[in-house]
Amino acid sequence: MKPVDPLKASAEVKAIFEDIKTTRKVNEVNNFWKYLANEPRMMRHTWESLKSIMGPGSLDPLTKELVYVAVSITNNCEYCMASHTAAARAKGATDAQINELYAVVALANMTNRLSNAYKVPVDENLKS
Amino acid sequence: MKPVDPLKASAEVKAIFEDIKTTRKVNEVNNFWKYLANEPRMMRHTWESLKSIMGPGSLDPLTKELVYVAVSITNNCEYCMASHTAAARAKGATDAQINELYAVVALANMTNRLSNAYKVPVDENLKS
Amino acid sequence: MKPVDPLKASAEVKAIFEDIKTTRKVNEVNNFWKYLANEPRMMRHTWESLKSIMGPGSLDPLTKELVYVAVSITNNCEYCMASHTAAARAKGATDAQINELYAVVALANMTNRLSNAYKVPVDENLKS
Amino acid sequence: MKPVDPLKASAEVKAIFEDIKTTRKVNEVNNFWKYLANEPRMMRHTWESLKSIMGPGSLDPLTKELVYVAVSITNNCEYCMASHTAAARAKGATDAQINELYAVVALANMTNRLSNAYKVPVDENLKS
Amino acid sequence: MKPVDPLKASAEVKAIFEDIKTTRKVNEVNNFWKYLANEPRMMRHTWESLKSIMGPGSLDPLTKELVYVAVSITNNCEYCMASHTAAARAKGATDAQINELYAVVALANMTNRLSNAYKVPVDENLKS
Amino acid sequence: MKPVDPLKASAEVKAIFEDIKTTRKVNEVNNFWKYLANEPRMMRHTWESLKSIMGPGSLDPLTKELVYVAVSITNNCEYCMASHTAAARAKGATDAQINELYAVVALANMTNRLSNAYKVPVDENLKS
Repeated sequence: MKPVDPLKASAEVKAIFEDIKTTRKVNEVNNFWKYLANEPRMMRHTWESLKSIMGPGSLDPLTKELVYVAVSITNNCEYCMASHTAAARAKGATDAQINELYAVVALANMTNRLSNAYKVPVDENLKS
Repeated sequence: MKPVDPLKASAEVKAIFEDIKTTRKVNEVNNFWKYLANEPRMMRHTWESLKSIMGPGSLDPLTKELVYVAVSITNNCEYCMASHTAAARAKGATDAQINELYAVVALANMTNRLSNAYKVPVDENLKS
Repeated sequence: MKPVDPLKASAEVKAIFEDIKTTRKVNEVNNFWKYLANEPRMMRHTWESLKSIMGPGSLDPLTKELVYVAVSITNNCEYCMASHTAAARAKGATDAQINELYAVVALANMTNRLSNAYKVPVDENLKS
Repeated sequence: MKPVDPLKASAEVKAIFEDIKTTRKVNEVNNFWKYLANEPRMMRHTWESLKSIMGPGSLDPLTKELVYVAVSITNNCEYCMASHTAAARAKGATDAQINELYAVVALANMTNRLSNAYKVPVDENLKS
Repeated sequence: MKPVDPLKASAEVKAIFEDIKTTRKVNEVNNFWKYLANEPRMMRHTWESLKSIMGPGSLDPLTKELVYVAVSITNNCEYCMASHTAAARAKGATDAQINELYAVVALANMTNRLSNAYKVPVDENLKS
Repeated sequence: MKPVDPLKASAEVKAIFEDIKTTRKVNEVNNFWKYLANEPRMMRHTWESLKSIMGPGSLDPLTKELVYVAVSITNNCEYCMASHTAAARAKGATDAQINELYAVVALANMTNRLSNAYKVPVDENLKS
């Protein structure tokens, strides 16, 4: 699939492009949105979901970006690692924090497999 | 493998059990450690790594637990979800925060696949 | 590993190359087969399995290619995404269908994690 | 997290429960929705996305359910396998089709790893 | 799907059941085969592939079982962990070896994510 | 993140670099370690874990490298596939063994999904 040129997009897609730019205070949308514009319904659902969940809520915005990076590393999504690491930095993440994040993600992937391998039963006091 | 009974453990393993209990201010270690005690070298490396990385650092301890939960959900590790959700709650996570965390993790897993499917090239300004 | 040059392949491997070309009505086999030819037994098992399962059966051939693409996106296999998307197009898939497929795959990856995170018990009426 | 009792849900959540029941012509929503109701924003986004993408479009509804099952098997999501296999059957899937689907999913997971292991370069004619 | 009762299986399936029992010198096939018998073509391909690849070859049989367990832990397949750990033990694996295997698998899952996170470029001398 | 130049590294990091070179009898460390040096604590834990677990133990060193490659293929970690395949070759792995390894890994990924799809219950005699 080719990315959708914002100048040639349908009115529906153009409106989403504009909302992304306004909400994020940027002059141009990322490549992700130009490709996703090939499926306008999914583009709209994805944008509405991210706008809502990644916006003001119970967790601070930086924590949410770090979580996003953690999942993207685990799934090996290079684009998502790049875009959400950039977003985390824009929200104040330092090099030291990002390095520590990588360490936590790596350890979690390690102990996930140890727990599986030993089929560790959940302790009574950990059940919720 | 059967869990190692702390009372019958080797001196090396007993010392790690004691360090876990002292460090975490708990009376008993979780099942995870009793199973991992079957491989004392790996038990020691895992404990030393977690003690160091999950301890004081650049990210606050709650953020690190939330990241741990996020990875564990992505990998579908039931034991790890239970133990690190409990740890997150002990460090102050509210229901609202945990629910929002689940939403972020789910969205990241979704956009990871959209990025892969469209083979979205990394934007110049996102490269680091 | 280097790809196996069809002209220099063993008689066993050459016969499989020929069967692939005849069955698929193509003049040359894809790179996948040239690499897999390094392990002739596995090449034969893989070809026999695919020839049988991806051939006439209970599901129509296009549906099977779309399923193949869906799994390949989920596992982030770039080669497989490319080859099976091409196969799906050759069997009639339109751009609109491929875009919708991407959306379904992304949503499934999302709700898979929500189900895991909430440890949703299977409803009685869904058990089979 | 506990499931949300539809009788005690907020007006916003109740409205979504009703829309699910009306759209799907069922008397009760599945457990998935009762748990997801703990995060009303995500519940709404998920429902709106699924209602739209899994509804009428370019691919027939049964194909979309089969794709959903394929992703859920690959990710090992037991709940999602159960609910979308039931949905596929309700849309006409036969035992023979479901067995064949499992075979396709298994083969895709196999050839995904062979392609990765051999680092097979994408053929020129497969690039899009 | 229900498992296929060997006594009521088709002649084709019965013959595969018999070949499994003869080859493995067992009196009954594992549940895996009884379920897979629902799709006789895939059952045959799977059996022929395993019989060939897991049989005599370049790697010793125990190594191949340990590799099988390693993949199954990484993918969190409980059935496969159980059946291939049993096979590894039958081929001589000791508790100490299995515990060490778990440690290697866990570390590989850890460094896989560190390599991804840092996007480490492959060293010239490691390219093949 | 940029790799850490060994000449400009801190004394702590330099000492780890030296230990890696001495232990592995190499003149330069791989890129992996230069990047991981950005997080000295994690670098130290990772090196100590690998030095211990991948060193003399219950499994022979080649088997452990093959297991490492198997996990890395399953997770699609290109760097790890390259570095551990090179390590396996240095420890004596032949082309025939590596090709057979790839076949085993692929089959395990296939039967993992068949077991999941059919929800095969663990046989009594396989429980441990």
